[in-house]
Amino acid sequence: MTDYGILAPAWAATGAADLVDDEALLTAMLATEVALAEAQAELGVIPAGAAVAIRAAAVPAHIDPAALAAGVRDTANPVVAFVAELTAAVRSVDPSAAEYVHRGSTSQDILDTALTLLCAATMDRILDDLTTCANKLAEHAQRHRDTPMAGRTLTQHAVPVTFGLKAATWLHLVLDATERVRRARAELPVSLGGAAGTLAAYHQYALDTDDPTDATLRLPALVAARLGLAEPVLPWHQIRTPLADVAASLMITTGALGKLAADVLVLSRTEIGEVSEEHAPGRGASSAMPQKHNPVFATLVATAARQLPPIAVVLFGSMVVEDERSSGGWHAEWQPLRECLRIAAGAAANAVRLTETLQVQPEAMATNLRMTRGAIVSERVNAVLAPLLGKANAKRLLADVTAAVERDGADVADLLAIALQDAGVTGLDLTGLFDPSGYTGISGPLVDRALQRFASVIKENA
Amino acid sequence: MTDYGILAPAWAATGAADLVDDEALLTAMLATEVALAEAQAELGVIPAGAAVAIRAAAVPAHIDPAALAAGVRDTANPVVAFVAELTAAVRSVDPSAAEYVHRGSTSQDILDTALTLLCAATMDRILDDLTTCANKLAEHAQRHRDTPMAGRTLTQHAVPVTFGLKAATWLHLVLDATERVRRARAELPVSLGGAAGTLAAYHQYALDTDDPTDATLRLPALVAARLGLAEPVLPWHQIRTPLADVAASLMITTGALGKLAADVLVLSRTEIGEVSEEHAPGRGASSAMPQKHNPVFATLVATAARQLPPIAVVLFGSMVVEDERSSGGWHAEWQPLRECLRIAAGAAANAVRLTETLQVQPEAMATNLRMTRGAIVSERVNAVLAPLLGKANAKRLLADVTAAVERDGADVADLLAIALQDAGVTGLDLTGLFDPSGYTGISGPLVDRALQRFASVIKENA
Amino acid sequence: MTDYGILAPAWAATGAADLVDDEALLTAMLATEVALAEAQAELGVIPAGAAVAIRAAAVPAHIDPAALAAGVRDTANPVVAFVAELTAAVRSVDPSAAEYVHRGSTSQDILDTALTLLCAATMDRILDDLTTCANKLAEHAQRHRDTPMAGRTLTQHAVPVTFGLKAATWLHLVLDATERVRRARAELPVSLGGAAGTLAAYHQYALDTDDPTDATLRLPALVAARLGLAEPVLPWHQIRTPLADVAASLMITTGALGKLAADVLVLSRTEIGEVSEEHAPGRGASSAMPQKHNPVFATLVATAARQLPPIAVVLFGSMVVEDERSSGGWHAEWQPLRECLRIAAGAAANAVRLTETLQVQPEAMATNLRMTRGAIVSERVNAVLAPLLGKANAKRLLADVTAAVERDGADVADLLAIALQDAGVTGLDLTGLFDPSGYTGISGPLVDRALQRFASVIKENA
Amino acid sequence: MTDYGILAPAWAATGAADLVDDEALLTAMLATEVALAEAQAELGVIPAGAAVAIRAAAVPAHIDPAALAAGVRDTANPVVAFVAELTAAVRSVDPSAAEYVHRGSTSQDILDTALTLLCAATMDRILDDLTTCANKLAEHAQRHRDTPMAGRTLTQHAVPVTFGLKAATWLHLVLDATERVRRARAELPVSLGGAAGTLAAYHQYALDTDDPTDATLRLPALVAARLGLAEPVLPWHQIRTPLADVAASLMITTGALGKLAADVLVLSRTEIGEVSEEHAPGRGASSAMPQKHNPVFATLVATAARQLPPIAVVLFGSMVVEDERSSGGWHAEWQPLRECLRIAAGAAANAVRLTETLQVQPEAMATNLRMTRGAIVSERVNAVLAPLLGKANAKRLLADVTAAVERDGADVADLLAIALQDAGVTGLDLTGLFDPSGYTGISGPLVDRALQRFASVIKENA
Repeated sequence: MTDYGILAPAWAATGAADLVDDEALLTAMLATEVALAEAQAELGVIPAGAAVAIRAAAVPAHIDPAALAAGVRDTANPVVAFVAELTAAVRSVDPSAAEYVHRGSTSQDILDTALTLLCAATMDRILDDLTTCANKLAEHAQRHRDTPMAGRTLTQHAVPVTFGLKAATWLHLVLDATERVRRARAELPVSLGGAAGTLAAYHQYALDTDDPTDATLRLPALVAARLGLAEPVLPWHQIRTPLADVAASLMITTGALGKLAADVLVLSRTEIGEVSEEHAPGRGASSAMPQKHNPVFATLVATAARQLPPIAVVLFGSMVVEDERSSGGWHAEWQPLRECLRIAAGAAANAVRLTETLQVQPEAMATNLRMTRGAIVSERVNAVLAPLLGKANAKRLLADVTAAVERDGADVADLLAIALQDAGVTGLDLTGLFDPSGYTGISGPLVDRALQRFASVIKENA
Repeated sequence: MTDYGILAPAWAATGAADLVDDEALLTAMLATEVALAEAQAELGVIPAGAAVAIRAAAVPAHIDPAALAAGVRDTANPVVAFVAELTAAVRSVDPSAAEYVHRGSTSQDILDTALTLLCAATMDRILDDLTTCANKLAEHAQRHRDTPMAGRTLTQHAVPVTFGLKAATWLHLVLDATERVRRARAELPVSLGGAAGTLAAYHQYALDTDDPTDATLRLPALVAARLGLAEPVLPWHQIRTPLADVAASLMITTGALGKLAADVLVLSRTEIGEVSEEHAPGRGASSAMPQKHNPVFATLVATAARQLPPIAVVLFGSMVVEDERSSGGWHAEWQPLRECLRIAAGAAANAVRLTETLQVQPEAMATNLRMTRGAIVSERVNAVLAPLLGKANAKRLLADVTAAVERDGADVADLLAIALQDAGVTGLDLTGLFDPSGYTGISGPLVDRALQRFASVIKENA
Repeated sequence: MTDYGILAPAWAATGAADLVDDEALLTAMLATEVALAEAQAELGVIPAGAAVAIRAAAVPAHIDPAALAAGVRDTANPVVAFVAELTAAVRSVDPSAAEYVHRGSTSQDILDTALTLLCAATMDRILDDLTTCANKLAEHAQRHRDTPMAGRTLTQHAVPVTFGLKAATWLHLVLDATERVRRARAELPVSLGGAAGTLAAYHQYALDTDDPTDATLRLPALVAARLGLAEPVLPWHQIRTPLADVAASLMITTGALGKLAADVLVLSRTEIGEVSEEHAPGRGASSAMPQKHNPVFATLVATAARQLPPIAVVLFGSMVVEDERSSGGWHAEWQPLRECLRIAAGAAANAVRLTETLQVQPEAMATNLRMTRGAIVSERVNAVLAPLLGKANAKRLLADVTAAVERDGADVADLLAIALQDAGVTGLDLTGLFDPSGYTGISGPLVDRALQRFASVIKENA
Repeated sequence: MTDYGILAPAWAATGAADLVDDEALLTAMLATEVALAEAQAELGVIPAGAAVAIRAAAVPAHIDPAALAAGVRDTANPVVAFVAELTAAVRSVDPSAAEYVHRGSTSQDILDTALTLLCAATMDRILDDLTTCANKLAEHAQRHRDTPMAGRTLTQHAVPVTFGLKAATWLHLVLDATERVRRARAELPVSLGGAAGTLAAYHQYALDTDDPTDATLRLPALVAARLGLAEPVLPWHQIRTPLADVAASLMITTGALGKLAADVLVLSRTEIGEVSEEHAPGRGASSAMPQKHNPVFATLVATAARQLPPIAVVLFGSMVVEDERSSGGWHAEWQPLRECLRIAAGAAANAVRLTETLQVQPEAMATNLRMTRGAIVSERVNAVLAPLLGKANAKRLLADVTAAVERDGADVADLLAIALQDAGVTGLDLTGLFDPSGYTGISGPLVDRALQRFASVIKENA
């Protein structure tokens, strides 16, 4: 099947798909068989020469992927056909080594280990991209620590915030994702359980060693070390927590980046214009409307965020499986896992471009802040007036004044000045009170806090 | 990206993927541009010769799919790059025709129409396969109309049923799926709305015709007729019901087939053995366990049934989109739609093999029916005894007797005979009463009904 | 458990919850037992007097709902306890009638029928509310058939549309939902299968009638007629298409209304202000910000649209069940079905308020249309210039001009006039060309079409 | 609305619902307002007496829950009405304290904090129940460390395992869930951000203190300490990771317990009978079939496992929200969060009963192990014969022999003895080779490992 990513805005042209395509999978399956053979050779379970021959033969060119796909329909997994192909390749290198291929092993051991290798490679890429995003967002947070803009709740102007706090919020989410992806990646286990999770055949073939049980118990750790994976407490054929953890961390990744994209899409609306993606030739172009500069990277990230969580549900559903290996539960995981990995990796790659090309327009922010003619600080004015007029009176007065402003277009401060004079209240610095930049609360110190966390999470990682 | 289906048991090697891969998509996009040009030529909006040139140039070989994927990252959809490639191809055929390519159109028109063409082709294939399944299940229902077997509820033997009724149940579900897929397929609309759903540019280019509004209103129907699609009432850029209907029909398809697979998996368990998939060399083989004949087709169908519904949620989520075209909502549909189509088509193809290779073991059914030593008809015995002993007494007596049977292993009929003698109840034909084949209710007539529906649904289609 | 809806913005205070709460359920279960008894009396299977007694006793006050909930944990469903309570109530009315309660029946028959009754009542309510919405939206479409406004794609101004076409789009979606809910509601079947779908016990108890098989076959239709439900072809204990159809129709309902809400939320943003919900005392108020008028009904509908599709997945998942009755698959349907019903009914009720209170601001639309200083019709200008300058030149010229406009703030028409003069192009009516109301394509006729469909769908229903 | 749990097998009668119902919510909202007032009093922002009055007035009896639900439809959240009710209650206690209620606060602060309090209480309950399950499963693992039984893959007997390893697998999953729930619970943050996350109003009201910024920065920690919650780095109105973490931990909880239930349901099938839930009067009873003992607790847990993951998707979807507070995203979280909490808590409570009442039948295990007449150890025999006959010959011989056994019913060992004699292979201890209890690999040491992890996870917690 040809899939160039034409229908996949979530990951097209980001390189994410290459990390998990059938070629990457074959490479990982071969690496798994090689690591198994070498570990068994180290334990004295198979001859050292056999492991050498297996490594020599284990190259993707020797395996016909179409045969593996056909095998999936014969045996419900590709490993039976894969082992036949690999065995033939080994035989052509060293006939005596052929019988040591896949020794004691089972389809799920190879496929699950290969899948965790794809997870590892993709999650490493995601972590790199999240770090780049975090760096860029930290810059924005720092630079705009005190740049005021309208805060919006339920689509309406609420009270002022700063763009620095907004960037710090995005940064916080990216750090959340980083920590969760990092943890799930570090715990990715090798899979070695044999036909039903007892390692019985591995043990059977180790009977000639000094301590077969010890050799069998040590096997997973040795294979894991070779592949950069963790050693599990028990075989996890039926214990799918590792993949559920991966899924959760990826959902949080696209959720975090999706929030960033959602905000950028709102703020770059024609009527708002507070941020935009940098214009570049052809980027965001329309085929028919020459004036168009669509927010492309935000759209691509938003796409990923809409797609991933439902697909990830399949992986949580597959925790519920019957028997030592289920009919359908295991099989249902593979393609959705791949899809989640490349969607999340695509989102991270596109978020890098989004944060790198993000243009901030403080003037537009200032203009929009004045759009409600002062009503945006009515919470503050209310707090000041309440002790003077009583809480209920103050709120009513302000509601009346802002309603008049909406109707007639004057400034809140001007109408309020008149109303306060009528009420005999004097001595208020209305100009200061209505300055939005004076009512951003502790936005600045909060930005500082987020930057401290950034330093700690990223330093710890470096 | 290479994707042979190695990780896709739901559709590997079924041919389903070819119906929706990037090559199929390109072909459908080209067909859409050709139909648009020909319809515009028919309406006098573009020269007839231009349509001829466009048809001549519109061959997949002229389009570089990798360029389209790269274009997705530039413009958030592949159509901008596609139109550039197609225009160049047309120019090389007939320079004067180049300007008539994609005239008045917009990316969403081309991509949505192409996607509905993929839906149409895939759903036609699914309908064929569902018909084959229905035929086979109807045979099973007919042949085993009166073959008794244990009915099971909450995993425990309940009362007898017939295998014919079970097959009729599966058949009923396949007919349900058939009707829903057929309906959604018949309603698949062409997409022609122009940049914001007003057909303004189509109209603009038709200004030189006699009745530009009429020409514009007629355009969608003409294109639809050429492509075998329906004419929509309104442009559906923002009205995603057609895809939601497709999604619902596919969820019901894998749900229906998934029920069949779930039953086959239970009934082919080693301990139950009432059905099996026909053994064939290599099918259901294990790499290490020579005795294994795993139920493969049932596993593949079960896989599809686990995967599809969550993925389809993305399509329902994409009904909720802002504006004339959304950022992310539209884009999120494409890959999940493809995935749902090929999963459902794979499930239908595998269900064909499942129903074709299904072996039924009436002897095993008979053996299992006797496993509870008569308790399986206790509902009936209860109904007979209640008027004689009172409802509560009858139930208590039967509960006691069946508990004794579970404990000591005698037959319910024998223990009951003794108990009834003690109670002074005589004259019951216990042998007849305990014959499971005498307590299948109206299973037979129900099978007949399902077969009547089968005749009507399939005849109507043929 | 107390649940006033405090955490349920999707349906709080709409009356939706009352249609499906435990009291409504009990009433429906009682109605089912009464209809069953009366149908059996009509068929001569039980004495007429027994049916009279059962009807007399079948009042909610006789059933302790807490006992039923406790029963759920004992027997995994509430019907066993319910039958015990009902039998006691009947006994107190007429001891001889007690044994005829629930005769031949099974838990799933009663619960499934009761659930379809809740579906019916809720879907009827939804249909009423959708009709009200459709009426209101049709008014908007008619009134604003030719009111121009900015069309927006990927968050940016694209080309003009009319508010009438937008309302017609919403109307079309509401009609889509109407048709799907109506169809699923009409097909809601009674459930009568007995312990394992063979109706064996119903048949057993009918053995004394003239034609037991006929009496048993006729039973479902008689019960269905009494309850306003449809007769199924087969018992549907394991054939969950009816509930999947309900789920699909509800997903389409909240999807359709969610699109309306999404648009209203965008258009009522402080910076856009083209629509708003009517202000009313306390509505949309904030506890601290006196100026706030939040779009409440749109928010409540948007909430429903986010919640329903994932929850509905449970119902599609429950199509895949093993055996004559599953352990978990059936049980998993109940609460999500209730939740989907009340969310969709809440959404419909809130959409009624949304459409009723929707305020349209044509002046704001006109102001926003001018915001890009003419660039919003660049597609049209491009179409006019292309034949004069060549396609590529025209597009480049327009892109340059609009870029200059963005940078310097002049009008596109003015800059273009200069550029055209330089290029020697004369005689264009630039004023007419740049009038947005002249470039709305066939928006008007499309509105007319949607109104025709409205007439047909609503008339057919009335 | 009345909800006794009649439709909620996932949590009916477990006490789970009480932890999250509207009464519990009100109590938590009141606790939040009290903690806020007391912290502000400590900081000198409000008079100490006001905090005393607020605590005195903050009792559920003073709040009308129906008014709050009505308020949800007016203002899209219940807090506006709640604050009005609470303020009135405080006024009746101490009029001068009324103005200090909810000072500087916003609806989301109160509701989010109250929701995390419900999370905390429910997750504490879940952790207790998971510990009980773990203890019971550890006993099973220990006791049956070496009890052999058939291992099953793809529904077919594969190789032997031990019941101890199966119990250890369940235990491992319960420990996985324990660790994840424990982590998410420990990180549950207080919510204090003010109208748009800047704490501006809190800061405004602190202007009379010595260091208003410091007082405002310290406020969240003081409130968190009073409520047993964590202090967040930033306000999390728009940073929904804490709830996503809760959701992930609950999905893993029902996934883990669902696996246990799935196995119990298979193993307690009439034909398998290796485990059962303890029979108790009325438990697992059918209304019509006196012999029935349905596996109830496993069914209830399986129900929960089917329901939770799709519902939890809503919470991940709500990570993607626009602005300082979204219209719909925030609101969509509340009811699904409640539902997830009570489903998971119900599953844990029912899993306690499941593990406590689980009966193990080693005799049935032994009987089933012999069902394939030796084929269950063919992997082992294959490993032994391969070096003697060659790999391919050995596999073919075994496949032939097991096929003959299936057909004719002899023992594999007997047929193999003949075949080996023909092949001239002698000296094998076929009796030992075919003893299933001799081919359980390293099941025993794996059980020991799982028990070590159990000790560490549970000890660490105690």
